[in-house]
Amino acid sequence: MNYFEESLKVHEENRGKIEVISKLKVETRDELSIAYTPGVAEPCKKIHENKDDVYKYTAKGNLVAVVTDGTAVLGLGDIGPEAGLPVMEGKAILFKEFAGVDAFPIALDSKDPDDIVKTVKLIAPGFGGINLEDISAPRCFEIEERLKKELDIPVFHDDQHGTAVVVLSGVINALKIVKKNIEDIKVVVNGAGAAGTAIAKLLLSLGVKNLIACDKVGILYDGIENVDDAKKALAKISNPDKIQGSLSDALVAADVFIGVSAPGILKPEMIKRMNKDAIVFAMANPIPEIMPDEAREAGIKVIGTGRSDFPNQINNVLAFPGIFRGALDVRAKEINEEMKIAAAYAIANFVKEEDLSPDNVIPSALDKGIAKVVAEAVAKAARETGVARI
Amino acid sequence: MNYFEESLKVHEENRGKIEVISKLKVETRDELSIAYTPGVAEPCKKIHENKDDVYKYTAKGNLVAVVTDGTAVLGLGDIGPEAGLPVMEGKAILFKEFAGVDAFPIALDSKDPDDIVKTVKLIAPGFGGINLEDISAPRCFEIEERLKKELDIPVFHDDQHGTAVVVLSGVINALKIVKKNIEDIKVVVNGAGAAGTAIAKLLLSLGVKNLIACDKVGILYDGIENVDDAKKALAKISNPDKIQGSLSDALVAADVFIGVSAPGILKPEMIKRMNKDAIVFAMANPIPEIMPDEAREAGIKVIGTGRSDFPNQINNVLAFPGIFRGALDVRAKEINEEMKIAAAYAIANFVKEEDLSPDNVIPSALDKGIAKVVAEAVAKAARETGVARI
Repeated sequence: MNYFEESLKVHEENRGKIEVISKLKVETRDELSIAYTPGVAEPCKKIHENKDDVYKYTAKGNLVAVVTDGTAVLGLGDIGPEAGLPVMEGKAILFKEFAGVDAFPIALDSKDPDDIVKTVKLIAPGFGGINLEDISAPRCFEIEERLKKELDIPVFHDDQHGTAVVVLSGVINALKIVKKNIEDIKVVVNGAGAAGTAIAKLLLSLGVKNLIACDKVGILYDGIENVDDAKKALAKISNPDKIQGSLSDALVAADVFIGVSAPGILKPEMIKRMNKDAIVFAMANPIPEIMPDEAREAGIKVIGTGRSDFPNQINNVLAFPGIFRGALDVRAKEINEEMKIAAAYAIANFVKEEDLSPDNVIPSALDKGIAKVVAEAVAKAARETGVARI
Repeated sequence: MNYFEESLKVHEENRGKIEVISKLKVETRDELSIAYTPGVAEPCKKIHENKDDVYKYTAKGNLVAVVTDGTAVLGLGDIGPEAGLPVMEGKAILFKEFAGVDAFPIALDSKDPDDIVKTVKLIAPGFGGINLEDISAPRCFEIEERLKKELDIPVFHDDQHGTAVVVLSGVINALKIVKKNIEDIKVVVNGAGAAGTAIAKLLLSLGVKNLIACDKVGILYDGIENVDDAKKALAKISNPDKIQGSLSDALVAADVFIGVSAPGILKPEMIKRMNKDAIVFAMANPIPEIMPDEAREAGIKVIGTGRSDFPNQINNVLAFPGIFRGALDVRAKEINEEMKIAAAYAIANFVKEEDLSPDNVIPSALDKGIAKVVAEAVAKAARETGVARI
């Protein structure tokens, strides 16, 4: 099937993918008087008396805004808010189909972080959570950080953290297969954009000691000058030996390569410099940093990509529906590191011990049972870390 | 039935009234690849190449934002954006149930007109139209005017124009019964807020020559000082004889009283000063300016109210779903006077000549056939006035 042609056809036939429907029938005078005036005055009054009742009488508690400025859409880059809408609608329907979360696209006509932060704050009363999407780095870091501080509902940039959670789940399971401990491994993350930065940080907070981040300029090290502030900050918390050089230099004696970079960048001769039983997650799309066959020939034991036609697909749909489901269920104030790590373990443990194999470290994205276990783990972590409100 | 208790129960059981659902199934790998990556890249690219294709491949063309700041909700006043949500959700489901329009509540956490205008502009890429709702006067006038100028999609403040359209339809039919011409009648509008001002302006643009607006300060006249600018502007275009005084003075020899003011304000002795076969629309809610029985006793031939338990209910649901349906169908750039007048005539003519009676000048709000004829009339008027894009 030609997915591109078919997608165009389906989008046109349906005029997009989302629909806003009523949970109530409004056909009789009584039904109209209950759903609308005069009856509707009563829930309004209750919420006016006690603002928290907005969770009781409206859709807020199950509603997530999928917010973009259209600056980093798929691999297409800065294509604008209108052109980003099909992705946002796609995200919205995955929220609903996989976790029963109502999600609505908000495509913003500004790239200014101040505008974006202010707009999201002003529309926040109607939403139970904010999913930032396809906003380019480094602006995405500032926008997310400011919103997290200023809002009391979860704010989550999926391109960063959703990806990081799924990669982490893959690393957890791959390490079981090669029998290595997370504290002992050396990890190289290639590509220090939104996803790469989040992956690096999450691995560090899970206990990885030796992590090196590379970007187009080569290895990031404390003191590096010709990169933006976000990359300087990442350099400070990684690369403990302060080594400098190229990706190839970084890979010497590495156990894990994680690529969110460019097609074909990882060469077989670089893999030879890695440790035995090395692990590769090559997520450049649609052509990965190295093709799975080539990686296996060069000695890689476990390889994952972003593609659904190879084993071990890193697909965010494994994470974001369940993460928000869990956060909304306990009315969490935020989605913290512990909740993300809990989600990663829940995804990893969804693959039963006896089913674990080099080609099966990550569950299938189509398994709708995952969102439930992720949600439970996330809700539990929220309660344990004191960010749950119910 | 106690609508208030029942409404509270229904809102709590359903956690609000709206739901965002998918038009597509996403259960197989193929379905996921068409609705989301990789297939979704194709509609994104098309829209990037030609921005107008956003109407072809996304939900934008059928989506209306129901925007409020919660400052004038029902008769409850400034209760805030959260407490306004049940009304916005109610509006959204009426859009869908009556006209198949997808509508989504946007409750804004600011009362500053600059903030409101800017926020609506920034979120506009995802919407085909903007329905302003329950924003207090006089800010609502400025906000609507600025948005109309700055956006190329319809912007419509329903509390003003929806109400005005339905009142106009009632006046049109009532005049048939009392056999008077619109050019000859004297109209008194009591209450110069959002609805009253819009009603006055629409009646004037339909040809009423003698119209007097009253407010708490009494009759508005050219040169009046102690009122806001919006009321001064209304005074300038009405009250041709520049009379001054109270509501009672205004009513001398009047043919029509339209109240959007306060309970019980219209006394039988004032009605005695009106012309023979006078018409009253008393829309204060829940208690009208005069009760229908009392009005009839005082000699009024046709009386309408805002209530569903009396004849001739002025209910905006007769207008806004069909008006937006028609505007969206032809991708109108705006909703202009001609489109509103066309809507009023479509509603009036929905009551067949043989069914017209003093107790039946306005069709039932529950008749879902109305939206279709209103939409057709509005679309036609949009084409004729050159604001339709397809």
